[in-house]
Amino acid sequence: MQLLKDRISHEGKVLPGNIVKVDGFLNHRVDVSLLRALSKEFAAHFRDREISAIMTVEASGIPLATICAEEMGVPLIFAKKAKSDNIEGGLFKSEIMSYTYNKKVTLIVSAEWLHPGDKILIIDDFMARGEAMRGLVGIIEQAGAELVGIGIAVEKGFQGGGDKLRERGIDLYSLAIIEEATDEGIKFRE
Amino acid sequence: MQLLKDRISHEGKVLPGNIVKVDGFLNHRVDVSLLRALSKEFAAHFRDREISAIMTVEASGIPLATICAEEMGVPLIFAKKAKSDNIEGGLFKSEIMSYTYNKKVTLIVSAEWLHPGDKILIIDDFMARGEAMRGLVGIIEQAGAELVGIGIAVEKGFQGGGDKLRERGIDLYSLAIIEEATDEGIKFRE
Repeated sequence: MQLLKDRISHEGKVLPGNIVKVDGFLNHRVDVSLLRALSKEFAAHFRDREISAIMTVEASGIPLATICAEEMGVPLIFAKKAKSDNIEGGLFKSEIMSYTYNKKVTLIVSAEWLHPGDKILIIDDFMARGEAMRGLVGIIEQAGAELVGIGIAVEKGFQGGGDKLRERGIDLYSLAIIEEATDEGIKFRE
Repeated sequence: MQLLKDRISHEGKVLPGNIVKVDGFLNHRVDVSLLRALSKEFAAHFRDREISAIMTVEASGIPLATICAEEMGVPLIFAKKAKSDNIEGGLFKSEIMSYTYNKKVTLIVSAEWLHPGDKILIIDDFMARGEAMRGLVGIIEQAGAELVGIGIAVEKGFQGGGDKLRERGIDLYSLAIIEEATDEGIKFRE
């Protein structure tokens, strides 16, 4: 999606180690009107599928997933990252490695809110090695729900997580796939 | 706001210790169309104030704050709860007590995204003792920005956090204030 690639090229910051920061419009100070445009793009791509809920992981994927849920007229379910005292039993759980925080994290979703027969579209702002996606797909399988597809704003293609999901036959739609990020600029996959 | 009180009365669950769970529509499986209605109510209340950004804390306040930001046509800034490796220096910080997780948590906002002259409306889904609010207000003060007001969906009035903020002269607008939650039902402040 050219609109998003332009924002990344103009406002993204490249840090050593192929890290691209887009926290000025996507995941710290958030341009919600951009999220609406991205959500319309996801809605168009997945328009022929019956989706019953959007799922994401707290925290930075929630703004985009919220606007997507409204755009598609379905509820939003977000997986939490630790067990708070206010969540009773009956949980679906999935352990993943968080490379952002360099530690293992358990994703949880209450069994009250995800059911067999649910048709789930996963939405997230960023994907690198795909650990969060692997965790969410595992939770959807535990619930006996159906994964319709995955929509990602920014995929770091060179880290391979996206291609692994595509090899599994999952309909993964990323709006911008970064292949290289250096001082000389950001290269996107065509 | 009667719409929200009705949802709490009909779908909220009361747990021992005056705990009210509304995770079926507000903060785990989220009814985004309800959030739009709440956001219109906040927009009406704060309509005469010039707001330059909405602020909230990750994670459960983000869906409501996102819809509010779109409703008011301003960006969303969300404070994060720990230091990830991807956030450089230049942070505003505020330490709070999280009673949900029973530990101290440091809220952080990058100094890149909050400036003197910003007029901030804080939005959150829940308020009990008001620790998260105290932390956000501290961050806004550090930045030299202006606090326009606070909008809360569900305030637990009997825990006193809201009244403490009102005593400081802050324009705190809560859409439902719970005074008591027992097996016999939920009582709201008039």
